[in-house]
Amino acid sequence: MKEQRVERILKALEEQGLSQMLIVDPLSIYYLTEYANDPYERFFGLLLRKDGQHVLFLNKLFYAPENSGVKEVWFSDTDPVAEVVAPYLMRDAVLGVDKELTARFLLPLMEKKAAAGFVNSSLAVDKTRGVKDAEEQEKMRRASDINDAAMAKFRSLVHEGVTEREIADQMLQIYQDLGAEGFSFTPLVAFGANAADPHHEPDDTVLKEGDCVLFDVGCVKDHYCSDMTRTFYYKSVSEHCREVYETTRAANEAATAIIRPGVRLCDIDKAARDLITAKGYGPQFNHRLGHFIGLKDHEFGDVSSAFDWKVEPGMIFSIEPGIYLVGDTGVRVEDLVMVTENGVEPLNHYSHELDIID
Amino acid sequence: MKEQRVERILKALEEQGLSQMLIVDPLSIYYLTEYANDPYERFFGLLLRKDGQHVLFLNKLFYAPENSGVKEVWFSDTDPVAEVVAPYLMRDAVLGVDKELTARFLLPLMEKKAAAGFVNSSLAVDKTRGVKDAEEQEKMRRASDINDAAMAKFRSLVHEGVTEREIADQMLQIYQDLGAEGFSFTPLVAFGANAADPHHEPDDTVLKEGDCVLFDVGCVKDHYCSDMTRTFYYKSVSEHCREVYETTRAANEAATAIIRPGVRLCDIDKAARDLITAKGYGPQFNHRLGHFIGLKDHEFGDVSSAFDWKVEPGMIFSIEPGIYLVGDTGVRVEDLVMVTENGVEPLNHYSHELDIID
Repeated sequence: MKEQRVERILKALEEQGLSQMLIVDPLSIYYLTEYANDPYERFFGLLLRKDGQHVLFLNKLFYAPENSGVKEVWFSDTDPVAEVVAPYLMRDAVLGVDKELTARFLLPLMEKKAAAGFVNSSLAVDKTRGVKDAEEQEKMRRASDINDAAMAKFRSLVHEGVTEREIADQMLQIYQDLGAEGFSFTPLVAFGANAADPHHEPDDTVLKEGDCVLFDVGCVKDHYCSDMTRTFYYKSVSEHCREVYETTRAANEAATAIIRPGVRLCDIDKAARDLITAKGYGPQFNHRLGHFIGLKDHEFGDVSSAFDWKVEPGMIFSIEPGIYLVGDTGVRVEDLVMVTENGVEPLNHYSHELDIID
Repeated sequence: MKEQRVERILKALEEQGLSQMLIVDPLSIYYLTEYANDPYERFFGLLLRKDGQHVLFLNKLFYAPENSGVKEVWFSDTDPVAEVVAPYLMRDAVLGVDKELTARFLLPLMEKKAAAGFVNSSLAVDKTRGVKDAEEQEKMRRASDINDAAMAKFRSLVHEGVTEREIADQMLQIYQDLGAEGFSFTPLVAFGANAADPHHEPDDTVLKEGDCVLFDVGCVKDHYCSDMTRTFYYKSVSEHCREVYETTRAANEAATAIIRPGVRLCDIDKAARDLITAKGYGPQFNHRLGHFIGLKDHEFGDVSSAFDWKVEPGMIFSIEPGIYLVGDTGVRVEDLVMVTENGVEPLNHYSHELDIID
């Protein structure tokens, strides 16, 4: 067990008035135990208790943790899960449950009155995972270092006649050659007007002169995710495209520049949005500025007008302003950044300079 | 809306004493509406009501259904889901909920007392999906036809010096060339002793003479899944391997031979298991005989000692006996089969003959 992480969650639960929580998100369990498991439809849970009597619930079909450091309770497919879990709960206390716990397992626990009440307490885990400790920070740096190196290789794949799909198909091998385990999400490759769709999937579009070339890509290294976007131009760039690019780049840099402990997430979003709006592209920047990231590519927490949290050292999120002109072009410039004691550390170091590929 | 499917589910709900159900499994919603959507962490639900006042709940970030034929209620990320859903529920009636509904959405509905009670009613959907109608049967046949054709192509990739990974890496393109959308699950390629692990992942193992070559593979065509296993031999086969192969093959055929409406799933499992046990390999057949399949590769319903359902025309499941000899060899012979009015229709037609590849 990662004791400090457990302690931070127990403290956050205490602030919610809770003394026990049943966690089922496999990544949250990995975060606390270093035991990685994909249970598919089977039950897989970690009970955290204020009194330290934590329990890991495992189906006999799972592989065994090497050294979980926590009491393990093994069960079979034929054992009703509520019967397996209930004896370990403090029946007279409210149980915090993971937001991902499904009705299949939650309703029988409620029917049995296995606890005094049931509330969604995931915020205790989400907020803890949102502030990375030193070990995680180092892993996040390494995942983004690989992403920087990969971006240079992806750029070199751009040539006359290439299609989006041909480039996308080569990316996994490049990441693996650089030491990553795989993608953190399906890579996005978009040429020209395709870049105006923030979720365009790589297709057979052939590159042509003057096109923008947008790569939104990330890898997983030691379980941690990277995520970066760069927008290049092929052979030439129009003045119009240049203006859109420089506006987006400036929005990225303006938002990043104000990050330091105590600044609100919504104000970071606003710094980018105000700049883009002033240039007349406000409606064409139609998504949040960024999202938290770590064991998963999208974790709880947004850099958006809806989140007024003050940022803290160790928080890592994306800064990804974009301008999308339907039928014309699209630009996004995205980095991961980490809040430090005094300011901000960008995890990506790949240049923001407008880059025309010959 | 697929009215007959809706009616079958409403009837099954009525048998559970229920007049309304909130479905959230995206495949179940596709099954009923032909609207395919992956909501990720966002809420996506279909309310079925006995009085026909069904409602599809959609986040404004989803793409619009072309013609859902059902009342659509659109909401934003900032709208609390319970507030969106509650007005459409019959407050004085118990709500059946999908087993996959998560605590994040279920608990607020319960706190609001949005219905008279909450029970897991997924069996109504699962049992309905378990009996394929004519349209689905035809799609399942086509997915398995592609799988049969693909198996012949995979066999042709077996040659001196090839690795498991090299074969696995070519499979997706072969499926796509045959008209499939993609894999129904990550293909399994195992040589020699690797085949003794039913979940071995393709690695850099190099083929050598006398190895078995196990392919457990499937594709998706028009949203429906195929799944088949064949075990070949390279250059030669030992008498020991031949006996294990023929035992497994006989178990597959013995189980399939007894399938007709009214036979229990557990007895189909038993037919295969008894034969393998009689040959002394009972402990080495350490999994269920089969699983249901359709829109998903593993659907609710097992061909195992734990399921005493009597089979009905339209049920489709796998028959996949295997014998796993750790450190030595492994065999599995798997087909999909469909229960008919009078017996059984195998959906796979690829030969069971022991096949030594030269």
